[in-house]
Amino acid sequence: MNPTYAKMGTTIFEKMSALARETGAINLGQGFPEHAGPPDMLQAAASALVERSSQYPPMAGLPELRRAVADHYARHQSIDLSPEEVIVTSGATEAIAAALLALVSPGDEVVLIQPLYDAYLPMVERAGGVARLVTLEPPHWRITAEALEAAITPRTRLLVLNSPLNPTGTMASEAELRIVANACVAHDLVALCDEVWEHVTFDGNRHVPLISLPGMRERTVKIGSAGKIFSVTGWKVGWMCAAPPLATALARAHQFLTFTTPPNLQWAVAEGLGRDREWFDAMRADYQRSRDRLSAGLSAAGYAMLPSAATWFISADLAASGIALDDVTFCERIVPEAGVVAIPVSSFYAERPVTHVVRFCFCKSDATLDAGIERLARFR
Amino acid sequence: MNPTYAKMGTTIFEKMSALARETGAINLGQGFPEHAGPPDMLQAAASALVERSSQYPPMAGLPELRRAVADHYARHQSIDLSPEEVIVTSGATEAIAAALLALVSPGDEVVLIQPLYDAYLPMVERAGGVARLVTLEPPHWRITAEALEAAITPRTRLLVLNSPLNPTGTMASEAELRIVANACVAHDLVALCDEVWEHVTFDGNRHVPLISLPGMRERTVKIGSAGKIFSVTGWKVGWMCAAPPLATALARAHQFLTFTTPPNLQWAVAEGLGRDREWFDAMRADYQRSRDRLSAGLSAAGYAMLPSAATWFISADLAASGIALDDVTFCERIVPEAGVVAIPVSSFYAERPVTHVVRFCFCKSDATLDAGIERLARFR
Ligand SMILES: CSCCC(=O)C(=O)O
Ligand SMILES: CSCCC(=O)C(=O)O
Repeated sequence: MNPTYAKMGTTIFEKMSALARETGAINLGQGFPEHAGPPDMLQAAASALVERSSQYPPMAGLPELRRAVADHYARHQSIDLSPEEVIVTSGATEAIAAALLALVSPGDEVVLIQPLYDAYLPMVERAGGVARLVTLEPPHWRITAEALEAAITPRTRLLVLNSPLNPTGTMASEAELRIVANACVAHDLVALCDEVWEHVTFDGNRHVPLISLPGMRERTVKIGSAGKIFSVTGWKVGWMCAAPPLATALARAHQFLTFTTPPNLQWAVAEGLGRDREWFDAMRADYQRSRDRLSAGLSAAGYAMLPSAATWFISADLAASGIALDDVTFCERIVPEAGVVAIPVSSFYAERPVTHVVRFCFCKSDATLDAGIERLARFR
Repeated sequence: MNPTYAKMGTTIFEKMSALARETGAINLGQGFPEHAGPPDMLQAAASALVERSSQYPPMAGLPELRRAVADHYARHQSIDLSPEEVIVTSGATEAIAAALLALVSPGDEVVLIQPLYDAYLPMVERAGGVARLVTLEPPHWRITAEALEAAITPRTRLLVLNSPLNPTGTMASEAELRIVANACVAHDLVALCDEVWEHVTFDGNRHVPLISLPGMRERTVKIGSAGKIFSVTGWKVGWMCAAPPLATALARAHQFLTFTTPPNLQWAVAEGLGRDREWFDAMRADYQRSRDRLSAGLSAAGYAMLPSAATWFISADLAASGIALDDVTFCERIVPEAGVVAIPVSSFYAERPVTHVVRFCFCKSDATLDAGIERLARFR
């Protein structure tokens, strides 16, 4: 077995969801909505399956979807991409894997920012890269120029940014994005920007894509996910966008990872991306309501909730809640004792973890959220 | 860009299909059926999309599908697998990538057999492995113990076998399979056995899985593909089967390549795998008729056809046909001059290619095959 996998466990999301399935606990762990997804998109995907094609689409994606992604970003984020700069992948996970395999060579250093999504570090290592960690601190999880500069060396080739940030639900300010962009330009780095949460933002916050910052157009790989935008996590349709020399490398890595993605889902996503602004606003408003419901309920129960500006997640600060347990112990105890599954934020760290913060997923029905709140209130 | 991708081009199948799309040529290149797929399976997949779930299924696959794969192999190939030994992937391409990333460490040698499917070599190299090539010769493409032994060194860890073999459409005899198994046992190698064509066999030939040979149960990764079995190449549902220590490594690599595969397609494939033997016999008989139609037509037109015992492909020997062109030139000329796309077999070689054999795909309608035959007859 390759050493990267020998030392690795099963991803925390799968472990916790398996535990929820086995015990019947309420699953506020892994990020997936409880509802089925937008009914008209499900119907569009079902019709395309029967009426259009179930054979290989083009390797880089259906032309309709590549164009829809480009048009969508032009309309919503004022980015000017050509369809040829969009490569469709089997979910954002594949996009991350393809980009790291394509862009990292053995010995290259890659800047990763903690807390980090758990796919990044193993794939950097499997690609032969050496991770250089930048650690953000609660409650604001701010990126500073000092911390970035301390992690960059002459061997650094790539920086990975998750924006908005899972698990914290925070959004980098424009000043922070400028710090990241300046560092990439100054040190000639490529930025891999995992923006799967770009549409799931609250309180009027609007996502600013890293690729739109000065000097970043030619050096950014922008990753997106239909699963997150349209609440269909099982569809596994994502994409990576980049200027031609990068896009060529990405397409070559993609062609031998999955080659292509089911065409019926691609058509449905292409359709979905063309919806009017109101649809996206309504989606955001819905999740914001759920965030507020969980946040208010857990606050009332005495949990110190950290702010969440985006994503499907909100965190509680155990220490500030007067709970003298580390996050892993808390999450292990609430399964049998409260019947709730959550995610310890320490699992998003490669070293020196923050151990007093727990992540809850709120993209659930009111009934589920209320039951979760009640159970967690009783646990206190 | 990582050097593996810097020197790589676009896969020949994509290149040729793109050419067919652009020029309107008849596409006898990339292997995909012209029909839509089994109507009842399309309907099952469409219903599951609307009525069941579009959210994350378990990472290693739906329990229903893992069990269906195990049951299917018990019934059709007398192999005894537990569902836990089956990992569902987003197509066989992902299974190959995951297995190579999981099992190869930098410096490991991997035996590859030419002609080879074009994903193998780049993924071996990207995993850090060193390919050791065994070359098969037309018209029988036989594996010999001498050739295998000559390629194995003390650093060899893995052997990749494609059985039945694409592009030749040949099936290794039981004697050849024993040679492969003996070499794996004698040198303590893991076998990665790409058996995506296991069901598409003709003339009463039955597939013998490498994992069923003495000593192979614990050291074989068996890869399968719903796309090939059910003629739905765009679904991208595959799997890898292996004993627990191998399966653990495979699952870990898979979790950070795609994580999971659309659940509606998994349910439909699980249903499909449970069909009775007659369904598989009828599928085989259909493709055998198409093989015979293309073979007879091209033979009558003066092409020297090589035998095809399996797959969707049959080859012509240009030299024996009295055509004084190499395979690449032939394939380049028939697009504009005949309006037909085919695949040069030299593209399945990493070095010292056979250059006088051309592959044609016959999983097409009678009308398409007849038109292809007529055009290729006129080209002569
Ligand atoms: C691929 S499972 C993880 C889903 C997710 O984004 C999360 O829960 O953080
Ligand atoms: C992934 S495209 C290649 C399809 C195929 O198996 C072939 O044409 O050989």
